[in-house]
Amino acid sequence: MRSVSIIGIGQSPVGELWKQSAREIAYTAVHGAMTDAGIETADALFVGNMLSGSLIDQEHLATLVAGYAGLYGIEAAKVEAACASGAAALRVGAMAVASGYHDVVIVAGVEKMTDTAGKDTTAGLATASDAEYEALHGVSFVGLNALIMQRYMYEYNVPIDAFAPFSINAHRNGANNPNAMFQDAIDRKTYVNAPVIATPINIMDSSPVCDGAAAVVLVPTEQVRRYSAAQPVQILASASANDTLAVHDRRDPLWLEAAHLSSEKAYRQAGIKPAELDLFELHDAFTIMSALSLEATGFAKRGEGWRWAQEERIGIDGELPISTMGGLKSRGHPVGATGVYQVVEVVQQLTRRAGANQVKGARLGMAQNIGGSGATIVTHILGV
Amino acid sequence: MRSVSIIGIGQSPVGELWKQSAREIAYTAVHGAMTDAGIETADALFVGNMLSGSLIDQEHLATLVAGYAGLYGIEAAKVEAACASGAAALRVGAMAVASGYHDVVIVAGVEKMTDTAGKDTTAGLATASDAEYEALHGVSFVGLNALIMQRYMYEYNVPIDAFAPFSINAHRNGANNPNAMFQDAIDRKTYVNAPVIATPINIMDSSPVCDGAAAVVLVPTEQVRRYSAAQPVQILASASANDTLAVHDRRDPLWLEAAHLSSEKAYRQAGIKPAELDLFELHDAFTIMSALSLEATGFAKRGEGWRWAQEERIGIDGELPISTMGGLKSRGHPVGATGVYQVVEVVQQLTRRAGANQVKGARLGMAQNIGGSGATIVTHILGV
Repeated sequence: MRSVSIIGIGQSPVGELWKQSAREIAYTAVHGAMTDAGIETADALFVGNMLSGSLIDQEHLATLVAGYAGLYGIEAAKVEAACASGAAALRVGAMAVASGYHDVVIVAGVEKMTDTAGKDTTAGLATASDAEYEALHGVSFVGLNALIMQRYMYEYNVPIDAFAPFSINAHRNGANNPNAMFQDAIDRKTYVNAPVIATPINIMDSSPVCDGAAAVVLVPTEQVRRYSAAQPVQILASASANDTLAVHDRRDPLWLEAAHLSSEKAYRQAGIKPAELDLFELHDAFTIMSALSLEATGFAKRGEGWRWAQEERIGIDGELPISTMGGLKSRGHPVGATGVYQVVEVVQQLTRRAGANQVKGARLGMAQNIGGSGATIVTHILGV
Repeated sequence: MRSVSIIGIGQSPVGELWKQSAREIAYTAVHGAMTDAGIETADALFVGNMLSGSLIDQEHLATLVAGYAGLYGIEAAKVEAACASGAAALRVGAMAVASGYHDVVIVAGVEKMTDTAGKDTTAGLATASDAEYEALHGVSFVGLNALIMQRYMYEYNVPIDAFAPFSINAHRNGANNPNAMFQDAIDRKTYVNAPVIATPINIMDSSPVCDGAAAVVLVPTEQVRRYSAAQPVQILASASANDTLAVHDRRDPLWLEAAHLSSEKAYRQAGIKPAELDLFELHDAFTIMSALSLEATGFAKRGEGWRWAQEERIGIDGELPISTMGGLKSRGHPVGATGVYQVVEVVQQLTRRAGANQVKGARLGMAQNIGGSGATIVTHILGV
């Protein structure tokens, strides 16, 4: 198997991009990554996207984006795994290069969730859950996460404001990210006074609905010298695992088994221990997911993920910086694009392009992308 | 790159499966393929599907199907490339095995298009075209193909009944396929009297809206002896190419450039010439596509694809049997599943499991799956 490296990154700003359609947003990211890599064409384009069928009446999205970027005669396909679509597409791109089928592959994540002409974004997001056994009964996607958070608070006797530091950290970091949707720091008071949207989740626990796209260019590591790119970043591990789609089918709804399995696979592939990581872009779609991720990936004990945030371990200068460019909470969560944004941000950190949020001496970073309420979890470890 | 072989196939009947949901239809195919291969688990499941977001409010489909089949802790992702989703998923599965990431991969195609509770299937199918520059202006997917057919008839001075033999051949073969949606032979009179649905396309030119699923099991060729499967079939070539999504953007709407490019790549990979093929499962979603496919893949001269059918070359005992189990026209076209059905049927032919439609001495078969009106075209060549 050939080793795979990232030689270029690109991203659009995240936000309510009402003046741009999906293809235009995607183009910003794809063109940015191609320019960064110094390439003019590619062998394939894989696009991570969840909602283009539900919200913008556009399937066949990868071929659309390829054409808009002037890429013809290449392979193009969309990859979908709910909110983990971006990282799932990166997995496919990595396999395409590792196998030898392709030498230059672009992986983009793109999502257009706002200004969607009468479509119901909440109903769209609910397609990540089990349509017949969850969504049909009226539980929304936020509702499912609220049930998990409520249970966590009860089971471990955790107060509501225990989750505030995740949100405060994300907003502090997002304030320095010019591509973040929210570039304002918040404090504990903002969190405590935030309107509740599905008890106990408030809007400061929850990532926003938004538009955005991010992209990377992959080549075999043995060929990186052919390109004029900035410092290449190697994909040391790429792993995916699934769990039951419906939360009620799990033996323990407070344990992200798929995060555990995919991170364990990733640690083995990279030959590292969790403590060696310099940063972790985790999937903070809701603060409860941050706590559960820290537990399932081997950092915190069960029921104590929230303590990591309490103990100020998660800041840029902390033991394990998380959401270093704002995370899903502050940078934003354009669902099918998120997994690629996470990887782009790890690359920014490892190549000293993270600006005011630079993690000093970062050489090893992990990104973990969660689909649904923990049903599909994809983990990548990158290194320089 | 590791060589990849198919060691198991499965399929559901194609039709209006009102009593089964998408997961149940998919299970029939996945379980069938696993039983045929003699496996009890797998490393990954890739699902080709186009319309689950638009028609059944279910994204995250691969993880749903994996769970329903009892497959946990594995990789699961959906692959979408409009009507070429099935073959695009097979490409991903082949790369996963070829790269060495996985040893046992299931690829399924599934589509649920009927009994979809008030959803508009025609609007769903139009998401294969350019939403902003084609569908928004009211042209349906059938309409786009009708424009191409009209132009073909004008440009090459072809009479309407020139296309009848494609449909007659498909129905003759479908009559012997127990999984086909239509198991009745038709004659020229049926074709000539068929109601027109978008001039000049009549219902006998057009494949039906339906439900269905098909699946294959992939392993490295070097490992086939570990399994109790029937005769393995090797994937000798797997290639994909794209063209403009919108038909009006093409220099020549009567030339399937992506079919030409992907079949040329496939012939090179397999090291064969077109004439060596024993059968060709082409994408006869509309009869005009059969004619254009035969021209773009090197069999017929431009404007003469229809003559192949006229000259009785396409029957089971002909020079190049096509649609040997009924094709999209008679077996049916559950869009995201079709590419996998085609490959399953090539495997049936190469392993002497095609019943009354067996192509004698078949050793080399090609399957070509078309997304949109020719924008994404995926070609596989299989051999024993």
